[in-house]
Amino acid sequence: MNAQKIDGLVAATYTPLGDDGTINTAAVAPITNHLIQSGVSGLYVCGSTGEGMSLSSDERKTIAAAYVRAAAGRVPVIVQVGHNSLADARSLAEHAQQIGADMISATCPSYFKVGTVAGMIDCMSEVAQGAPDLPFYYYHIPALTGSALDVVDFLKIAGDRIANLVGLKYTDTKLHEFQECLELDNGRFDVVWGCDEMLLGALATGARGAIGSTYNIAAPLYQRLITAFREGHLTEARQWQSMSVNMIRTLNHFPFHPAMKAVLGMQGFDMGGCRLPQESLSGEDISRLQAELEAIGFFEWSQTESEAVSTE
Amino acid sequence: MNAQKIDGLVAATYTPLGDDGTINTAAVAPITNHLIQSGVSGLYVCGSTGEGMSLSSDERKTIAAAYVRAAAGRVPVIVQVGHNSLADARSLAEHAQQIGADMISATCPSYFKVGTVAGMIDCMSEVAQGAPDLPFYYYHIPALTGSALDVVDFLKIAGDRIANLVGLKYTDTKLHEFQECLELDNGRFDVVWGCDEMLLGALATGARGAIGSTYNIAAPLYQRLITAFREGHLTEARQWQSMSVNMIRTLNHFPFHPAMKAVLGMQGFDMGGCRLPQESLSGEDISRLQAELEAIGFFEWSQTESEAVSTE
Amino acid sequence: MNAQKIDGLVAATYTPLGDDGTINTAAVAPITNHLIQSGVSGLYVCGSTGEGMSLSSDERKTIAAAYVRAAAGRVPVIVQVGHNSLADARSLAEHAQQIGADMISATCPSYFKVGTVAGMIDCMSEVAQGAPDLPFYYYHIPALTGSALDVVDFLKIAGDRIANLVGLKYTDTKLHEFQECLELDNGRFDVVWGCDEMLLGALATGARGAIGSTYNIAAPLYQRLITAFREGHLTEARQWQSMSVNMIRTLNHFPFHPAMKAVLGMQGFDMGGCRLPQESLSGEDISRLQAELEAIGFFEWSQTESEAVSTE
Amino acid sequence: MNAQKIDGLVAATYTPLGDDGTINTAAVAPITNHLIQSGVSGLYVCGSTGEGMSLSSDERKTIAAAYVRAAAGRVPVIVQVGHNSLADARSLAEHAQQIGADMISATCPSYFKVGTVAGMIDCMSEVAQGAPDLPFYYYHIPALTGSALDVVDFLKIAGDRIANLVGLKYTDTKLHEFQECLELDNGRFDVVWGCDEMLLGALATGARGAIGSTYNIAAPLYQRLITAFREGHLTEARQWQSMSVNMIRTLNHFPFHPAMKAVLGMQGFDMGGCRLPQESLSGEDISRLQAELEAIGFFEWSQTESEAVSTE
Repeated sequence: MNAQKIDGLVAATYTPLGDDGTINTAAVAPITNHLIQSGVSGLYVCGSTGEGMSLSSDERKTIAAAYVRAAAGRVPVIVQVGHNSLADARSLAEHAQQIGADMISATCPSYFKVGTVAGMIDCMSEVAQGAPDLPFYYYHIPALTGSALDVVDFLKIAGDRIANLVGLKYTDTKLHEFQECLELDNGRFDVVWGCDEMLLGALATGARGAIGSTYNIAAPLYQRLITAFREGHLTEARQWQSMSVNMIRTLNHFPFHPAMKAVLGMQGFDMGGCRLPQESLSGEDISRLQAELEAIGFFEWSQTESEAVSTE
Repeated sequence: MNAQKIDGLVAATYTPLGDDGTINTAAVAPITNHLIQSGVSGLYVCGSTGEGMSLSSDERKTIAAAYVRAAAGRVPVIVQVGHNSLADARSLAEHAQQIGADMISATCPSYFKVGTVAGMIDCMSEVAQGAPDLPFYYYHIPALTGSALDVVDFLKIAGDRIANLVGLKYTDTKLHEFQECLELDNGRFDVVWGCDEMLLGALATGARGAIGSTYNIAAPLYQRLITAFREGHLTEARQWQSMSVNMIRTLNHFPFHPAMKAVLGMQGFDMGGCRLPQESLSGEDISRLQAELEAIGFFEWSQTESEAVSTE
Repeated sequence: MNAQKIDGLVAATYTPLGDDGTINTAAVAPITNHLIQSGVSGLYVCGSTGEGMSLSSDERKTIAAAYVRAAAGRVPVIVQVGHNSLADARSLAEHAQQIGADMISATCPSYFKVGTVAGMIDCMSEVAQGAPDLPFYYYHIPALTGSALDVVDFLKIAGDRIANLVGLKYTDTKLHEFQECLELDNGRFDVVWGCDEMLLGALATGARGAIGSTYNIAAPLYQRLITAFREGHLTEARQWQSMSVNMIRTLNHFPFHPAMKAVLGMQGFDMGGCRLPQESLSGEDISRLQAELEAIGFFEWSQTESEAVSTE
Repeated sequence: MNAQKIDGLVAATYTPLGDDGTINTAAVAPITNHLIQSGVSGLYVCGSTGEGMSLSSDERKTIAAAYVRAAAGRVPVIVQVGHNSLADARSLAEHAQQIGADMISATCPSYFKVGTVAGMIDCMSEVAQGAPDLPFYYYHIPALTGSALDVVDFLKIAGDRIANLVGLKYTDTKLHEFQECLELDNGRFDVVWGCDEMLLGALATGARGAIGSTYNIAAPLYQRLITAFREGHLTEARQWQSMSVNMIRTLNHFPFHPAMKAVLGMQGFDMGGCRLPQESLSGEDISRLQAELEAIGFFEWSQTESEAVSTE
């Protein structure tokens, strides 16, 4: 499949929940507009960030459709369809194609671990066939799936076995493996970086695009990082990365995704709490998080220049 | 909740699949009758053995209903409802109660790991409330869920927080933790053993009931083990356990559950292959497995005396 | 090598340290006499319990010689000689033979992990050759060495490759693997159990001997467990095991081996603190541990009947 | 302690062994001269590469002294002194200071795992005190020690507790943690990169110095990488890194360090085999490795320009 490669920052979007814990689709359009204004070049829906695995298939379809509708063709929408039940994953893929999503992506099952490259290809093939017209990205995230297979080997074989495979979302810290994937067969595959706190190292190694959760709350910071890098100002790029690392360390004083949703709330986008097994933050925790983020200057440097003005 | 404790062998049932990979409910009644005749005292449906996580929710409901119907009250049916989406898990629990299942059981989510006892209780509480009239067993299987929390601590607190919690399916090798769970609060909880190959050690430690996959293919062997143990013939009990260990080592020369399904086929019960990510055995592998099992005498000592006669 | 099998309880001895942290050999004789009086049938010196890996080779030789001298032939002494440097391990083995130790035992290296059965045999062969006249026990403790190889496969091959290999110290919770080792080649190998808190299950599975640290502080308790088991009083045996499990849970509220040394101090045997990286208990912790142990009645049921009288 | 920071490539040296497996000190001078000619700016002796843990303490002292003598002040020599026995580690540190080594470094113990930052500081403090006049680098390598503590937290506290602590050898893939260590307290610590295959990403993130094993066989390649990076030619730098990644993948078709020693042999420096538990390569494997390296052009691009001429 011939597809345009992902470039720049793709936000791994959150799933807004109401006070009763159900999907709050009304909150999708505002955050989508905000993300596009802040410069993201795509949306990755129902991934780990979007709590895809914690939602029912119907809820996943609802939220995917809401983001496709909200994006309205302004930026591509990638729907993550991985599921322990590959039949469900395939059905989610079919749905993504029907609603006009631009690409799909999937983790492998995680309850039963995938132990061989051949098995991984069989699994991903079944899922990808659900949306034969859409580019497919395997979502490599061994910390959550428990499958740490050699992705270079996977690409070498899967490239000829899965017709619509175009690349990977690479969420691990092995830059060398990432580089091998990037360079395989003269750059045949689109290998998208997935660790926001290592973006600079990934850019140096050849990354073009990145998918991550903190691009929801601080895309302008990362845009400055990328611009500085591309203009050859490495010291400045390092400073922006340093702020990102500091921000992520602060977020990690709390359960990460619930804290991220709380920050979006502070920025004016009410995302609600998280689905179990992720626990939502208490009001007290939210206040403490806000104070910690203020102390490191987060609310200044995470905004675009225009926002910095408009919120004064 | 006051519930009768599980006693003896509960078969963790397989999900029969047809040649096209869809659920084959027609195969449920024959295997159920066989299991009851071979002395099992209950059925545990849609667990790891039954590939619950690899099925869609609709398929899980279909197979659970088929086993409840086939059991027809002769032995209790426990439906495993764990799911990464707790909403789906709860909905499966509701369905289990509606169709007249006798008990429910659930793993915790496994994509996002459950890191604290409090979080585990929140998760299991949400699931258990779906079937408030049924006894609930938490299914502890850290090798697959990645949650190795102290189950003694879990029971101590959950016992007063989850109204219908009655115990655990304990699938780990720590006999001492199992013993503590068994003896907690004067034996308040029903703690059911889950490692077939260590049944004798568990019986010595106080186990009354056990849930496992190899009780599908060799219940008579384990019945003899239990009888020998209860009559004080430890040396004999050890010999039966030794055969079980030998049988399981042989099965583990192949992917385990696909091999088990193949053995049921050899015994006259066509279960079909497995859902990915578990790969089905090739015809050649099945022949090799059969030869290996014949070499250790499996087909004699896995049968009841009456069967041993009838098949001559 | 034809050697008598280990029977009953072997204490994995502690290494007494003085206030300055150096080896206190004067404390060896009293604890040795006490252990023999309390019924242990052997001493396992410089294992994990004895902090062998945290001592210099000279210190290991000193403490090994002290225990051999103190035992004076009344019970066999097994010296653990495992070391990251196999040359050092072999030299410790030579020394053990010279001083008249009865057996040797060794872990594999743990910094570089041993990844294959063939590699394990090469390593253990090198060590065992240092004491060709002594029976050799491979010390399997995957939680500390990181090598979780199949020990059945190891024994099958090593039995013919290492002339003085007689068996294993099996410190893991897989009773089925333990049983296979025990029964291999008609019980050719002496496979000694290493998890005190699962002793009852191991006895039921066929264990004859056991090596452990809590036999230092509560041998009479375990003797009663064994006696009850052998006389067919399983319910009583379970009660003794239950006390042991309770005791070990209490000890685990603190760093385990430092807590064990503190308990020996309470029993009149000053063992001092632990070598780093194990941190010694503070005075306050020791008081809290003593109170917790009193609360569960430890100081009554851990003694022999004669001691129970003599200390009144 | 005020010490000059490490800059450029430090070779983690190999320990030459003779045919009989003993230390071959005669081979130290030639490889040292070669490394200095090929541009390395320091030697790191008895680390994982140098099989420090597999040697006796006497052997470690012998090889450390040989490298100090061979370096003769031309480049600094760092001696790695980590040991399961901290008394031995401290004694190795004392020796390093006596023989005129320039710096010391140490892993924590790995048999007993270090579980807390406070415990880690206690351990490293004991070792560092053995060489109070030398700068001390904690050697962070969680894959081998099993201690994955937060090194930022370690530095924050240890910086004021261990007088001669100057930094870390950071051998993990978490660039963000590396960056935090680098930037802590305005760059107070010297944090040296330890993953050769990710050098480019580390340079972008701020690395000045790197310690690694492949700088023994391909320092010129990495020098070109660094030069290209510093001159702003990222695409070229990426090409050199790509060759390094390719080379390392080829080496990993075999046991890594034995393969590295074989390559040094091909380059004219006979290092002999490895100590168990690392298995030496067979003659056949060496031939296969050579062919694979030739196929990727290794013997051209791993040399300096002058060497490239002289070998024609």
